[in-house]
Amino acid sequence: MSLKEKLHAALRRQALLGASIEVLAWDQEVMMPRAGAYHRAQVIGELAALHHQNLTQAVLPLIREALHSSKSTFTPSEIAQLQIYLQESEPIEKLPTDLVRTFSEVASQAQVVWAEARSRSDFSAFAPYLEKIIRLSQEKARYLGYEEEPYEALLRLFERSLRPKAVEALFAEIREFLIQTLQACQEASLPASEAPALRMAAAHQRALVEEVLTRIGWNPETNRLDLSPHPFCSGISPKDVRLTIRIDEEDILMALGSAMHEMGHALYEMGLPEEPLGWPITMAASLSIHESQSRFWENHIGNSLAFWRFVYEKILPAYQPDWLSAYTPLTLAQRANLIRPHLIRIQSDEVSYHLHILLRFELERALINGDLSVSDLPAAWNEKMQKYLGLTPPSDALGVLQDIHWSMGSFGYFPTYSLGSFYAAQFAAAIEREHPNYLEAVAQGSFELPLAWLRTHIHAYGHTLTSEALCEQATGEPLSARYYQAYIRDKVAQLYEGLVALPA
Amino acid sequence: MSLKEKLHAALRRQALLGASIEVLAWDQEVMMPRAGAYHRAQVIGELAALHHQNLTQAVLPLIREALHSSKSTFTPSEIAQLQIYLQESEPIEKLPTDLVRTFSEVASQAQVVWAEARSRSDFSAFAPYLEKIIRLSQEKARYLGYEEEPYEALLRLFERSLRPKAVEALFAEIREFLIQTLQACQEASLPASEAPALRMAAAHQRALVEEVLTRIGWNPETNRLDLSPHPFCSGISPKDVRLTIRIDEEDILMALGSAMHEMGHALYEMGLPEEPLGWPITMAASLSIHESQSRFWENHIGNSLAFWRFVYEKILPAYQPDWLSAYTPLTLAQRANLIRPHLIRIQSDEVSYHLHILLRFELERALINGDLSVSDLPAAWNEKMQKYLGLTPPSDALGVLQDIHWSMGSFGYFPTYSLGSFYAAQFAAAIEREHPNYLEAVAQGSFELPLAWLRTHIHAYGHTLTSEALCEQATGEPLSARYYQAYIRDKVAQLYEGLVALPA
Repeated sequence: MSLKEKLHAALRRQALLGASIEVLAWDQEVMMPRAGAYHRAQVIGELAALHHQNLTQAVLPLIREALHSSKSTFTPSEIAQLQIYLQESEPIEKLPTDLVRTFSEVASQAQVVWAEARSRSDFSAFAPYLEKIIRLSQEKARYLGYEEEPYEALLRLFERSLRPKAVEALFAEIREFLIQTLQACQEASLPASEAPALRMAAAHQRALVEEVLTRIGWNPETNRLDLSPHPFCSGISPKDVRLTIRIDEEDILMALGSAMHEMGHALYEMGLPEEPLGWPITMAASLSIHESQSRFWENHIGNSLAFWRFVYEKILPAYQPDWLSAYTPLTLAQRANLIRPHLIRIQSDEVSYHLHILLRFELERALINGDLSVSDLPAAWNEKMQKYLGLTPPSDALGVLQDIHWSMGSFGYFPTYSLGSFYAAQFAAAIEREHPNYLEAVAQGSFELPLAWLRTHIHAYGHTLTSEALCEQATGEPLSARYYQAYIRDKVAQLYEGLVALPA
Repeated sequence: MSLKEKLHAALRRQALLGASIEVLAWDQEVMMPRAGAYHRAQVIGELAALHHQNLTQAVLPLIREALHSSKSTFTPSEIAQLQIYLQESEPIEKLPTDLVRTFSEVASQAQVVWAEARSRSDFSAFAPYLEKIIRLSQEKARYLGYEEEPYEALLRLFERSLRPKAVEALFAEIREFLIQTLQACQEASLPASEAPALRMAAAHQRALVEEVLTRIGWNPETNRLDLSPHPFCSGISPKDVRLTIRIDEEDILMALGSAMHEMGHALYEMGLPEEPLGWPITMAASLSIHESQSRFWENHIGNSLAFWRFVYEKILPAYQPDWLSAYTPLTLAQRANLIRPHLIRIQSDEVSYHLHILLRFELERALINGDLSVSDLPAAWNEKMQKYLGLTPPSDALGVLQDIHWSMGSFGYFPTYSLGSFYAAQFAAAIEREHPNYLEAVAQGSFELPLAWLRTHIHAYGHTLTSEALCEQATGEPLSARYYQAYIRDKVAQLYEGLVALPA
């Protein structure tokens, strides 16, 4: 085999092992009988170890050989991809395979324990697992190395060029705007705040969601739609992309919101090039860019007045005709965009959402850096909830236990959610410059224009560029949070004209 | 790491890789969106290659080292297990990893093509894939080596000590009995032959099946029950065992029969020791023994008059009270045991069933040995159907396309079905000697006695003995088909007393 063939085979194996882990993890969340958890953790751990071994023993040495070979047969585009691959993987190379396996096993078990603890609102059941995961994460950080603080090493696993200080600065910039906007909305008497919840039977919600998603590109030949307590999207291949949603019979906004969010992730996975297996062109650019896709579809489409005109006119007549007289597109959009602090992150409006992220960022940074103990975590959580959102969780299920991330060992993940929102707003502005009336088409039930723009400017590039470079190429400038601020201002002005006095 | 630790790690990896393939294959059959097939074939192929590599490069060399080491720290029982492992795996060692990967990929794709071809009754769509699989199987046979014919090598992959000539002899022994019994039943006017089919809505059938299986040991903590065109059981671990059934709304016997059959497999998987991962004690003894478990529950329990008394008294009142007046336990049992040739193997009675196997054995042997071409297969199928069962399939969907096995490349598998039935009859006789009234308990809805016997005498041993040794130990004598003949005679006498004149 030539070097090129060997490299293709190693990258292909890496991709296929990754896909197998994806299926096993999806199955664990959605299908597996509960008693299978302990064994499943071992299966995933073993595959994670093989995945890591193949990376460090085959993929990376072959990439280095390719990059240093003088008579290389790789094209400049291939060389660029290999350089990106190397850059992204170098930290992971520093981790011993045994740690990777153990981490995967513990995280896999902890997710099951977390789900159980959450359902019984029993933090103490989850605490020993969380402690184990934090200890392993700190060990991971030591192997990875960092300049200023252990948390830095974990954050950079998700976004290579990001530092905790930068996240801190970013939040410092918008924190006051968010808090003041939230306050202004709370003080105003928003029309939707007293509206009855949009109650609908689970089976009807599912059918409605499936119809909406089908208009956007969901297709049973390529996609699945299932239920899980924590909605997620699993991209096994561009031809096998699975969404899960959560249904709250008391309020359809949960199902619809999670569906639009996960559909954004799904469209990205479906839009990535399929070949050559394992090369960066077939991969997502980063978690932040992935999140920009889900945020775009959840916020800029799903929360738009145009979308609610579409739902009102094309969807509701078949599912809930009585809502036609109880609501208008505007009052539905107002309800979907009710800006009010909420205990649950994924049920939060677009303003208080980022205060949720700020809280998690501060807490996980303190946990990893050794400044906060697990036993003090619930109290710290509740204190910050009071400080940023003016709420106190009545139970840990509605507080510190609400998210799956820490049980998965995903410390450093939360900040990418805020980055994703900011990218999304900047992309939406670029789409609007190119198609000033794209929301008119959305109101008619056509989602082609934004999808085509994202396919061309984001999806098609895979991970051949960094998040930053992709953003600059697609929008003409580096990431800036001002598009998000402008988007929030416009939204408040459009939906709550004259009712809310925004900060200057 | 000591040799012992290294061997444990290699066997553990082998087991966990095997389990991951099991999940991916289950998902492919039951959950995967269709468009994911091509990619999935590559994932499974890659894992099959890793599985094979780990066997040949780690497991087997370490076992040899352990067996030859003079200061071995292994117990006699461990040594015996390692010897069995070696014996079973030696042929597989001869296969090149690339052939294993290619075979797995082609088979994985072919299963999807087969399902599609079957649904459209289009043999020509499947034919090129079948040809590919046969060519690869012949190549496999050449690597494995054989004494008399290529088919021998494949048959022995499933049952180490079995030869085609022995299968031939076995069938020669009972063939006439089966044909004559079938004929005698056809000539008799059996009471159930005109009875209306047991029609029930799919959702009700599912609930009924779940209730019956729950009485036997099915449990949502450990098990799943799903639908698939070809029912199967997937044992991912003893704590994660999944059954699929097929539902025919026109006749509940399809769902109930497939459920009892797969439940037999499931009970075996659930009864195997969990630890130490990868050691023969945690594995099934053989395909024939596996099949003996499914046959025992399908035939000796599910088709017994006692079982139908249980269904009549404890199950039907809640699901189909109107059948209580239309049937009696006897007439229900007669319907379940209607001995009449049927086009479909898995819908066949226990007499004609083995003629179906004989037909497949003869055809697959000819295909692999190069005596029959794929293009001549449908005609050969129909000819033998006429000869053995007096039927001509009206379509290939109801003929040569009905089974998944050849699309999976499982040549040599079918004979183990008949062996399984013969083992089951011999086990049932042993159970009856120990618990002469165990069917009385079954009639009351208690399945503990036979399950406990199987757990103690079969399941607990895993693959620490060969099929033959296990049978001798459990029943006191080597496998003999006379228990099956006696079982059929007793059944006909009990259900059709005075109506059927059996051959002497």
